[in-house]
Amino acid sequence: MLKKYLIFLLFLSVATRSNAQADTSKVYRVAVLLYPGVELLDFAGATDVFVKAAGVTGGKYQVYSLAMTPEIVSTERNTIAIRPGYSGQGAFPPPDILVIPGAPLETIDSLMSNAAFMGWLRRLTDGAGVMMSVCTGAYFLAQAGLLKDKPATTHWYASTDFGTRYPGTRLVRDVRYVDAGRLVTASGVSSGIDGALHMVEKYSGPAIAALVAKIIQYTPHHQEAWPLK
Amino acid sequence: MLKKYLIFLLFLSVATRSNAQADTSKVYRVAVLLYPGVELLDFAGATDVFVKAAGVTGGKYQVYSLAMTPEIVSTERNTIAIRPGYSGQGAFPPPDILVIPGAPLETIDSLMSNAAFMGWLRRLTDGAGVMMSVCTGAYFLAQAGLLKDKPATTHWYASTDFGTRYPGTRLVRDVRYVDAGRLVTASGVSSGIDGALHMVEKYSGPAIAALVAKIIQYTPHHQEAWPLK
Repeated sequence: MLKKYLIFLLFLSVATRSNAQADTSKVYRVAVLLYPGVELLDFAGATDVFVKAAGVTGGKYQVYSLAMTPEIVSTERNTIAIRPGYSGQGAFPPPDILVIPGAPLETIDSLMSNAAFMGWLRRLTDGAGVMMSVCTGAYFLAQAGLLKDKPATTHWYASTDFGTRYPGTRLVRDVRYVDAGRLVTASGVSSGIDGALHMVEKYSGPAIAALVAKIIQYTPHHQEAWPLK
Repeated sequence: MLKKYLIFLLFLSVATRSNAQADTSKVYRVAVLLYPGVELLDFAGATDVFVKAAGVTGGKYQVYSLAMTPEIVSTERNTIAIRPGYSGQGAFPPPDILVIPGAPLETIDSLMSNAAFMGWLRRLTDGAGVMMSVCTGAYFLAQAGLLKDKPATTHWYASTDFGTRYPGTRLVRDVRYVDAGRLVTASGVSSGIDGALHMVEKYSGPAIAALVAKIIQYTPHHQEAWPLK
């Protein structure tokens, strides 16, 4: 164990050094958007990547959940009941990174026809540094007009529907995520892990991102042959 | 979208048919153990696999969270605050499958020295059909004496320490999970996804497991070359 620990410390020191060009003094506030019916792994994958990144950077990521209202939010099929860390009814740390997870399309459609929710989301995205949708979370961004003329991706199964509804967006297939600068979109469910690792690489360097991938015992990838093309 | 939906229905019908030998009438109660400091992705990966399996089997998996006491449980680094679905202070559905996620080793060690927690966990495991630990959740099973003379795995980084502490357990390296019958152990963090998909395959057949993997857009694997051997 001691030998492994020493190798780990060496790795960490190399990781920190190779990361000299990134802004390592900044603390990134990461808001994870929650709403009733949200898919658990859509946000949990990305969230845990940022939590682990906080652990190996001395807290350079401050991760919190955020919902429109302060009530308990239940994930898909009423599985996990979450008390939001912050809500839109009070003050919350302005997010540098806003994670927008997906849900089954009926849930998404219902929320997109809710003017109060879409108005709040639009104010939230206006104030966010960068955004990363996961899975069908891309529908919110497209519906808000944010993906016009931009490359983006979504869950492979929803992609044809997405392309039909939002012809102005340049749909990218066979990838885990698309980085369009201020707007990152990840593909289905577990792809949020790859999208978040990509963001950690951008902000903390490749060595920290590789370390986080090892901690969550995950092999990141960018390209992926989607099923049922 | 219609074409895809028809292909999906066809796939589902094949999936259901090829699964004739499994007991498709049984509803599996899946309890997800929560405790303060638990790692989010450790349980969220496995949990969402069972949630998606419920979705494509007409609710054959009933998934709920369970903690020793009814108070809100915060995940690692106080990130996500969860209100347990059930607690040990009241009645809860007896689990057919008990998911035991991990945490940083300090958290695990602290809980293992808590006699009330370990006593409760022991009663819980006695009453569970099968158990699946994820990551350092294997320490709880080993400490309770349940892994004696059994093959098991844990997070790659903790494996040497685990082997030293529990020499009676046959530690298996370079895998995502080990199935020892009533006791399944998954390796680090994201490996819980593979362990849960394996269990869905056992209980609902390979076609349903393959469908769940597609829904969460994940390529399952069993063997894996661990880092730093």
